[in-house]
Amino acid sequence: MFEKPPKNSREKTKNLLLELQDEICAGLEDTDGKGKFIEDSWERKEGGGGRSRVLKDGLIFEQAGVNFSEVHGKKLPPSIISQRPEAEGHEWFATGTSMVLHPKNPFIPTVHLNYRYFEAGPVWWFGGGADLTPFYPYLTDVRHFHKEHKNACEKVHKDIHKVFKPWCDEYFFLKHRNESRGIGGIFYDYQDGSDNIYKGNNKKGKASAASKKIDKINLNWNDLFSLAENCGKSFLPSYLPIIEKRVKIKFTKEEREFQLYRRGRYVEFNLVWDRGTIFGLQTNGRTESILMSLPPLSRWEYGYKAKQGSREELLTSIFTKPQDWLNDKKLEELCIKNQIFD
Amino acid sequence: MFEKPPKNSREKTKNLLLELQDEICAGLEDTDGKGKFIEDSWERKEGGGGRSRVLKDGLIFEQAGVNFSEVHGKKLPPSIISQRPEAEGHEWFATGTSMVLHPKNPFIPTVHLNYRYFEAGPVWWFGGGADLTPFYPYLTDVRHFHKEHKNACEKVHKDIHKVFKPWCDEYFFLKHRNESRGIGGIFYDYQDGSDNIYKGNNKKGKASAASKKIDKINLNWNDLFSLAENCGKSFLPSYLPIIEKRVKIKFTKEEREFQLYRRGRYVEFNLVWDRGTIFGLQTNGRTESILMSLPPLSRWEYGYKAKQGSREELLTSIFTKPQDWLNDKKLEELCIKNQIFD
Repeated sequence: MFEKPPKNSREKTKNLLLELQDEICAGLEDTDGKGKFIEDSWERKEGGGGRSRVLKDGLIFEQAGVNFSEVHGKKLPPSIISQRPEAEGHEWFATGTSMVLHPKNPFIPTVHLNYRYFEAGPVWWFGGGADLTPFYPYLTDVRHFHKEHKNACEKVHKDIHKVFKPWCDEYFFLKHRNESRGIGGIFYDYQDGSDNIYKGNNKKGKASAASKKIDKINLNWNDLFSLAENCGKSFLPSYLPIIEKRVKIKFTKEEREFQLYRRGRYVEFNLVWDRGTIFGLQTNGRTESILMSLPPLSRWEYGYKAKQGSREELLTSIFTKPQDWLNDKKLEELCIKNQIFD
Repeated sequence: MFEKPPKNSREKTKNLLLELQDEICAGLEDTDGKGKFIEDSWERKEGGGGRSRVLKDGLIFEQAGVNFSEVHGKKLPPSIISQRPEAEGHEWFATGTSMVLHPKNPFIPTVHLNYRYFEAGPVWWFGGGADLTPFYPYLTDVRHFHKEHKNACEKVHKDIHKVFKPWCDEYFFLKHRNESRGIGGIFYDYQDGSDNIYKGNNKKGKASAASKKIDKINLNWNDLFSLAENCGKSFLPSYLPIIEKRVKIKFTKEEREFQLYRRGRYVEFNLVWDRGTIFGLQTNGRTESILMSLPPLSRWEYGYKAKQGSREELLTSIFTKPQDWLNDKKLEELCIKNQIFD
């Protein structure tokens, strides 16, 4: 049923994800100019461990967390077995690199990245993605982030971005607010080489219209490895130019307050809806590493409403809804009109 | 199977809970001296509505939220029907008052209260409780809060506090931190007049040792109404004296930072573990009212560790573990020794 992965599959993915962590940390330190990552190495009783890295109080980053982990064990949790019965009775292996950046300046977006690989007996899969959460967005920044990830996907197959972009919109959605977490990016999970690459956000997940049209894509193990590699490596070029462009913008106390308020939504998504976070917390994961995604400072305000037509209102009227950022001409005109195009 | 509630049961509980909201709001405004509650009345499409009240930026309270709601409908969610099949096919009614206070001064504890009543056909039950979350606790304050609630319970039955106190410890627990949310108080749910008053925190809930000893208590509808009344009315006298005693303490920037850090735990509990919050968010409840419990400002810090023997360390080594606050002599000595008795 499943293609056999190469003999050195575990070593290969682990090394890729270790390199990715190193590369990202080096790029971020270089860009920040002041903050340095502090590393915590940790071991897991049941097998494996990780290295958690955090940069605090940089010039640009209020907090940056970049985690690598490689864990293995003998017994899988029932939630995985019920989803993949073929994995039962086999020892398992999982490795991943994940990152969340919380910049100080509200004109620089918060951003998240995660790439991971899993193996148990005949079962294996890749998952991952990256998504951007701006507070005061510019359409050119949004387009740049999407374009870089689109290119990275298209190097592997011309159509997969059409699946992974809407999948991201579906996944990073706060149902209780009827808002997207941000402007999206790409997201994929359970990529095991079978031909329907859209696997849904849960067992009952329904493919979006866009995904359904193109569900006959065959990606083998090597394609999926390249995908993680391409997308992972496209992160710095997709994000650093946005910092460069926006870091000089002076922000007011009110804009900072708005950023803290919106960070509350980030907390809500991660603690209420994010499968990885909830699964980790409920199954005795390393709490400090899991919750490194949470912002250093966050605010809630009952009944907050942005002024009509304000920059703050444009965030929720345009940028927390799934959009065709790259092609929508009306959106472009709207952003030009509101001086948030470039 | 169920005792028939009095004819005016809905009116009676609704009025009790409306009065409770009024009484608490009046008491808190009076104590604060500056802040005033602003009321939002809202209606629910499917039937009923509520009044949400919030006080912001008072002298004592950074934020105080006190909500009343009375909602009804024709169709129950499957989660309730699976638990109480007798309710199926009946129209239902639910009313409740809930409150969370976030004081400015870290020497004044955060506190939560909730009393509620539910009816559908032959099925009815009461639930509720109150619990205290100090940052820099004193044992006398903790004892005072527990004593008042113990007295309120004992007016109804001499043994029920022995069930509702440990039930509170079980419910307000952050498994991913291995910490209690605070020093507890009382908690009860599904009180429907049947003789096992401990109904567990979920269908598979196991009674604590303390509860098991005394599960032959018969409380009828009127007893349970009195219980909500007594406990609800005991809130102000259980809490206001603590404010009075601690409000004059000057606090440092570091103590304020610690308070914000610990408020992060409050967010984690409410969004990850609190059944009511999660149920509300996932079933299209009024998000702003549900999340009024979240603190106005909150902080996370990767890898934070309090200095050994510090006031901050005493919080987690003593006060976030279930304890026999009223009777434990060793605890008393420990608090006297550390100058956190009175």
